[in-house]
Amino acid sequence: MVIPTTHQFAIGIDIGGTNTIFGIVDSRGEIKYRGAISTNKYDNVTDYIDALYESVRPALDLINGDEHIRGIGIGAPNGNYYNGTIEYAPNLKWRGIIPFADLITAKFGLPAALTNDANAAAVGEMMYGAARGMKDFIMITLGTGVGSGIVTNGQVVYGHDGFAGELGHTIIIPNGRLHKGTNMRGTLETYASATGVRLTAIEMLSRYPDENSLLHNYEEAEIDSRVVYECAMQGDKIANEVYKFTGEILGKALANFIMFSSPEAIILFGGLCKAGELLTIPTLEHMEANILPIYKNKVKLIFSELKEADAAILGASALVWESKKPSSIA
Amino acid sequence: MVIPTTHQFAIGIDIGGTNTIFGIVDSRGEIKYRGAISTNKYDNVTDYIDALYESVRPALDLINGDEHIRGIGIGAPNGNYYNGTIEYAPNLKWRGIIPFADLITAKFGLPAALTNDANAAAVGEMMYGAARGMKDFIMITLGTGVGSGIVTNGQVVYGHDGFAGELGHTIIIPNGRLHKGTNMRGTLETYASATGVRLTAIEMLSRYPDENSLLHNYEEAEIDSRVVYECAMQGDKIANEVYKFTGEILGKALANFIMFSSPEAIILFGGLCKAGELLTIPTLEHMEANILPIYKNKVKLIFSELKEADAAILGASALVWESKKPSSIA
Repeated sequence: MVIPTTHQFAIGIDIGGTNTIFGIVDSRGEIKYRGAISTNKYDNVTDYIDALYESVRPALDLINGDEHIRGIGIGAPNGNYYNGTIEYAPNLKWRGIIPFADLITAKFGLPAALTNDANAAAVGEMMYGAARGMKDFIMITLGTGVGSGIVTNGQVVYGHDGFAGELGHTIIIPNGRLHKGTNMRGTLETYASATGVRLTAIEMLSRYPDENSLLHNYEEAEIDSRVVYECAMQGDKIANEVYKFTGEILGKALANFIMFSSPEAIILFGGLCKAGELLTIPTLEHMEANILPIYKNKVKLIFSELKEADAAILGASALVWESKKPSSIA
Repeated sequence: MVIPTTHQFAIGIDIGGTNTIFGIVDSRGEIKYRGAISTNKYDNVTDYIDALYESVRPALDLINGDEHIRGIGIGAPNGNYYNGTIEYAPNLKWRGIIPFADLITAKFGLPAALTNDANAAAVGEMMYGAARGMKDFIMITLGTGVGSGIVTNGQVVYGHDGFAGELGHTIIIPNGRLHKGTNMRGTLETYASATGVRLTAIEMLSRYPDENSLLHNYEEAEIDSRVVYECAMQGDKIANEVYKFTGEILGKALANFIMFSSPEAIILFGGLCKAGELLTIPTLEHMEANILPIYKNKVKLIFSELKEADAAILGASALVWESKKPSSIA
């Protein structure tokens, strides 16, 4: 049976530690229906999938039934594309290795593809966002943590085991700041994340206690990347230094990534991007200063073109159109 | 015209700064004929190609003419796969951008594919060596410098502009040892190369002037990676420390590369590999210590299975069989 392209839809599901959001998306990237359920309310993954099904079901009627659905794409923490599994996700209640895509297929009767959230974001960007037409780019998500999705030769780099692209955990400053989650030191995520910006601000305040700073008006517990951003925009010197330092670390990390895969662009996404040029000016400076001449002034540093609220759903749904795996997407 | 597979040959050419070596290779990787000409004798690339042609010509008669040659593969410094060009190679006399593959095709009347020497080595390893059957691996060449060839999804990563895979120039120690060629600091090549081993030995001797060491028997100019290796094998403490330090830097670098592309194996090649476990034991230790748990004890660290004298020719010739570029290899 051939379904006219105009009638094809994909379901995109983004699993977060707290909530799951989903959408019915057409092949042009328009989200026709949105919904959400709690993730952490369900101790048992079967109960969770039952609840998800009940929540998605009414939406299928709106598009006249599931025969118009080509498949289901899922973005999940520690998602493994090859196996369709979620493996030992620290911020989910379901322990061990969950055959998530198979469970979804069994419940929905539809093919399902799954990957981690950052890879899904890269696929979404390639299909609908700033990376349209690009075959080689790196997507960096700068949120509470730092995620990444890498595309070379037009394909997501999943690596031998499906876990490629953990650039947030590459070491930029040997013996640097401790990452409490991984116990590793000096990784990109310890600096170039919302958490990292907060820690840098606190460190700088204690290093320059006599420096006048708007940041002194806040309790330590109140200082977060939003506060630092607002102070920086008001001209606060320390807050500006925080972004300069963050950009320096990020720029040096991006330089190393460029010498790995020589991308056409690096696409930044996530909460930290709100800082705009406060972040990108020092990032670009240190990126360009730390690459070989053959790469200089070639690699674009750009922001995602997807709305943050939509990106996770679009990215997950895009897996359905992008996937060439015959085993999961017929 | 369909040529039986058993009668198909490729010409592999490896261009070094001093000499060029070439071979006629069958599809099973047997080198049927070898030859060499000077590289640096020719100020003009046209004269060089004329000389190369004159040198290859007699070999073609041995295999009953060039109708059995499927194409020519070339490994060259600063070789660009996409364009078939050699671009601003610092150790060649031909300046600027040389349309090398086109010049070869014009002279030989055969399709030609070109890439840099490290990528050619990776292709050779995938076709005939330790990476047979692998779709995701990283080849690191540890010689005078450090080169790299990266394969993901079964394809060499060339990147947007054809220059991907310069892992020797990634920064491992910020503000570390100066690289005189690139003016960058703390790059992998400044430590994990033959040149790096020599510099580390000299540094350690001056840091521990009172330490008994066989290395004191040598003039500074005589100390090279071979001397350090021989002293280490005789139990010399400082020489052993040199390899421990070199392995530490290499292991940390490999850890970052693993979190990028999650390879099945990292394959080491080149002169420094003679050190064997002197190098690999500390390398493995620091590689495993600096990766996320999901990667631990998964990535093989192995040596090339190609003879060093053959690898360059095999790698270059393998480009002919591997290439899918319709424009250059019909």
